[in-house]
Amino acid sequence: MGQEAKKSLKTRLALKSSLARETLAEFVATFVLIVLGCGCVAQAVLSRGVAGNVVTINIGFALAVTMAVYVAGGVSGGHVNPAISLAMCATGRMDWCKFPLYVCAQMLGATAGAAAIFGIYYDAFMSFADGNLAVSGPNATAHIFATYPAPFLSITNGFAEQVASTALLVISVFAIFDTRNKGAPHGLEPVAVGLLIFLLGCSLGMNSGCAMNPARDLGPRMFTAVAGWGLEVFSAGNNWWWVPVVAPMVGGIIGAYIYVLSIEIHHQSETEDTEQDGDTYGKYELTNSADIHLGSSETSCA
Amino acid sequence: MGQEAKKSLKTRLALKSSLARETLAEFVATFVLIVLGCGCVAQAVLSRGVAGNVVTINIGFALAVTMAVYVAGGVSGGHVNPAISLAMCATGRMDWCKFPLYVCAQMLGATAGAAAIFGIYYDAFMSFADGNLAVSGPNATAHIFATYPAPFLSITNGFAEQVASTALLVISVFAIFDTRNKGAPHGLEPVAVGLLIFLLGCSLGMNSGCAMNPARDLGPRMFTAVAGWGLEVFSAGNNWWWVPVVAPMVGGIIGAYIYVLSIEIHHQSETEDTEQDGDTYGKYELTNSADIHLGSSETSCA
Amino acid sequence: MGQEAKKSLKTRLALKSSLARETLAEFVATFVLIVLGCGCVAQAVLSRGVAGNVVTINIGFALAVTMAVYVAGGVSGGHVNPAISLAMCATGRMDWCKFPLYVCAQMLGATAGAAAIFGIYYDAFMSFADGNLAVSGPNATAHIFATYPAPFLSITNGFAEQVASTALLVISVFAIFDTRNKGAPHGLEPVAVGLLIFLLGCSLGMNSGCAMNPARDLGPRMFTAVAGWGLEVFSAGNNWWWVPVVAPMVGGIIGAYIYVLSIEIHHQSETEDTEQDGDTYGKYELTNSADIHLGSSETSCA
Amino acid sequence: MGQEAKKSLKTRLALKSSLARETLAEFVATFVLIVLGCGCVAQAVLSRGVAGNVVTINIGFALAVTMAVYVAGGVSGGHVNPAISLAMCATGRMDWCKFPLYVCAQMLGATAGAAAIFGIYYDAFMSFADGNLAVSGPNATAHIFATYPAPFLSITNGFAEQVASTALLVISVFAIFDTRNKGAPHGLEPVAVGLLIFLLGCSLGMNSGCAMNPARDLGPRMFTAVAGWGLEVFSAGNNWWWVPVVAPMVGGIIGAYIYVLSIEIHHQSETEDTEQDGDTYGKYELTNSADIHLGSSETSCA
Repeated sequence: MGQEAKKSLKTRLALKSSLARETLAEFVATFVLIVLGCGCVAQAVLSRGVAGNVVTINIGFALAVTMAVYVAGGVSGGHVNPAISLAMCATGRMDWCKFPLYVCAQMLGATAGAAAIFGIYYDAFMSFADGNLAVSGPNATAHIFATYPAPFLSITNGFAEQVASTALLVISVFAIFDTRNKGAPHGLEPVAVGLLIFLLGCSLGMNSGCAMNPARDLGPRMFTAVAGWGLEVFSAGNNWWWVPVVAPMVGGIIGAYIYVLSIEIHHQSETEDTEQDGDTYGKYELTNSADIHLGSSETSCA
Repeated sequence: MGQEAKKSLKTRLALKSSLARETLAEFVATFVLIVLGCGCVAQAVLSRGVAGNVVTINIGFALAVTMAVYVAGGVSGGHVNPAISLAMCATGRMDWCKFPLYVCAQMLGATAGAAAIFGIYYDAFMSFADGNLAVSGPNATAHIFATYPAPFLSITNGFAEQVASTALLVISVFAIFDTRNKGAPHGLEPVAVGLLIFLLGCSLGMNSGCAMNPARDLGPRMFTAVAGWGLEVFSAGNNWWWVPVVAPMVGGIIGAYIYVLSIEIHHQSETEDTEQDGDTYGKYELTNSADIHLGSSETSCA
Repeated sequence: MGQEAKKSLKTRLALKSSLARETLAEFVATFVLIVLGCGCVAQAVLSRGVAGNVVTINIGFALAVTMAVYVAGGVSGGHVNPAISLAMCATGRMDWCKFPLYVCAQMLGATAGAAAIFGIYYDAFMSFADGNLAVSGPNATAHIFATYPAPFLSITNGFAEQVASTALLVISVFAIFDTRNKGAPHGLEPVAVGLLIFLLGCSLGMNSGCAMNPARDLGPRMFTAVAGWGLEVFSAGNNWWWVPVVAPMVGGIIGAYIYVLSIEIHHQSETEDTEQDGDTYGKYELTNSADIHLGSSETSCA
Repeated sequence: MGQEAKKSLKTRLALKSSLARETLAEFVATFVLIVLGCGCVAQAVLSRGVAGNVVTINIGFALAVTMAVYVAGGVSGGHVNPAISLAMCATGRMDWCKFPLYVCAQMLGATAGAAAIFGIYYDAFMSFADGNLAVSGPNATAHIFATYPAPFLSITNGFAEQVASTALLVISVFAIFDTRNKGAPHGLEPVAVGLLIFLLGCSLGMNSGCAMNPARDLGPRMFTAVAGWGLEVFSAGNNWWWVPVVAPMVGGIIGAYIYVLSIEIHHQSETEDTEQDGDTYGKYELTNSADIHLGSSETSCA
């Protein structure tokens, strides 16, 4: 195939709509997140702790987010999380019209990722507890896919914790991408976000596994419901399932406004900044490009 | 809300005083530090080692510092530690008039963070040891919030260790931010500082948990005193409480002067440097901007 | 030896052919990968878990890849993996004529690395199980060098998993090096790839150790066959040996096309990009240099 | 003290000789390395594994190297290791006349660091085994400071391993600093070197703890000899002490030449490189500045 033919093929296949491109990227990235993230839980659970433990699970899920952001970060921002997308929209970083498509792509990607990890570890699932797919008890495997509350946790405390966790997530993500604050260097934001996820898993993970992401939780849970674990995945933990869906959305907005109101809004304007080092243009450009990579708010939905 | 209205709202809300802005940033960052840092200890202690251990605690507290520096680093320097602020003032990196405000913000943020983590894990605290809030013994939970000495440790050795730990912290922090030395790249200093904190926790943490930070220790300790643990939190360990308050301040100044006198003062001046690569301007600018992010000494207190 | 003489010696020793240079670099890098990577497994196995465990093995193999990419990254791309080289060729990043030489260098380097680690730990091998070199059982040491399937794993599931693992590896590697996507900063791609390998080891390592690399697996396996473990290294696990040779090649191509078709092909052309920030030239250059470091497709084979 | 007075004080205190400056920096950096590195071993040993383990020791020593390189990297190169200094001299990266001073500073810094960690953990040493300072047996503490061979290790195998380890260290260090290869970004070399040290500890640490550094091993060993452990620290392990002194020097030179002859010498000259992206000047400058930071070969000894 000549260069000419290749180019024409590329031109024909390339998505013209930036919204389609971003939706596809969110789907692939969320798929990668769930295959690799839930894979770490699967490895620890199915090997009964021999090939994994709390450290590999927490580091692993964190790095799965890192890789997901590398896969889609330059295209759609790599939110892979409806709560992040909502925080973006609520603070004007992304057009609201994109929100439903992002969420759909994230939900589909997460569900597909859950199916993939079930396939990759199919023999292991079948040999673990003689193929019995349990939601609770010593042979439980449902928590490989979705989060369940600890026995001591009330719905109220659990809801509050998921709000707080997601708020802290969004505060830190906004700081990492805020080039007028310290800001991670371009190309390393995915790693900084990974460190953050690891920290949240070590710090706030004991109540309910710290989902902080409706797609990451609901998508795989729906998969388990149909793949053999049954509807107990929804009723377990006093109907826990809706908490990691609703609370992160609330926490995302709260965190976004805490960061904007306590830090971002007080940054000196570019004109005032010039008294420091004179490179107004450079700073402005950086700020813009950060916006692009977080949420592509420049491209309209039309 | 139109762009116009938004802008005018932003103008009205934005803090005009850079000191107010910095104080607010220190508060938020220290809050984040304590919620996420003490959260890691809480998770390990309250799960009796199942969901955390010495590695997750040390990495977790280190990453909590990283995130705190991302949250405030570009505004106030992200000291989140009175000993660091003192070292900054003592070496002319920050105006002395800012010092009391920084310390107040750090103390308040740390106390608020301790309250938040108590709330987030309220059900877990209540189910752990039947809601008994103990300072010592197998069900002790006070060390989730503040540090306590190991049984073998004398006050003298403990004081000397906290001085040495904080001195090593400040030496390394100054090196990490010293752009005329090797220096971490702009935007990655928070990660390098996190690696340093992890190292100090693995290396000098056995005597008393290596607080190295009066706000991190005293703020949460005061919270525990009123939240139900009682005044034993001050009397425990032979009245240990004042050591992690006083010793880090001494160590901070000692470390700062060790670095300045053994390394920084001997850097060739910018004019001499030009014989190497000619970009005096670039270097000078970098040095300045490092000062800005460490301590904002340019903005006067008036 | 004067500067003059040195220079002339250098001129005489320097390889004129860029293909010879790249082949040599791949050999050295794959050698480093296997010495240090399999060394981590050796340390954990031979110390019966005292000096190593699942975390040190997974981090260690990941960092061995990082160092291997540092050793050869700027010369040959540092593929150290025929599946990566194949993915490069299949997507036009490398000339097909280089492929056989790269694979030979990788196979030879991996075999030599296995011999080196056997030498470095010779006394330890001899004292472990009285010098008996076993392929299976509690004293097995063959899995220090090559991967073997878990008892529950069928060939079908194992093959599918190796295809999926390698596809996910290549998707993420392409994203990490894609400067028109988020992309890791220049000089940090080796670290990002290391994080990825660690993640894959924590996530998809339970079935069969997640080789994802024909040279990494077959080279050391051949060494063990002649060094005393015997031909059981090929027959074990239902003749498992060919799976980590063939499946990664299939997965590498699949992953490459998934990334190209779902992400890369939809990047806006440089001309369109100019509407964002105007530095077409800079972007184009970056893209090119990324290609150079991944596969040096510019230099012809002639 | 006015700005004027401060400046004049600085001028009087600043070392005029670049060699004195570099020697002082090596001393401080090696001190930091040993306090923090051996501190990690002390914490794990003295807490009998409660506050540390093989992971914290390996990560800790690696990060201690990272911080040491941050402390001195921009002044003296931050070798903190006679074997590295030797490799630098042998390949023309540093003047031979500097070598003895560097080695003296490294030895003194390491010895002082050992004394400091003994002081910091004095109470812990006294309470551990009732203050008995043992070289071997279950209460051994001498291996906190220096390395001792595993029971199975012969002197021959141990020597060969230390040669191989140090050679692999130097190959990778040269690659990390080689800006014409992939090369770590400026300011992140200390972190990349830390990753390398961690890897070597996980991979080749089982025989004898992988010293790879005569100063790191001999300095603290001499301290233990006089501080109460006695001369058994030299006779133990079949007079092991000279192996980690001599073998790393041999390995350092071998590794340096392997890298130069297999990779560095084949880099295309700057003039040829211009066909790629035209920034000859930039590349040349980078190469130079890398030399500066590794070994300051520009400044003569006179």
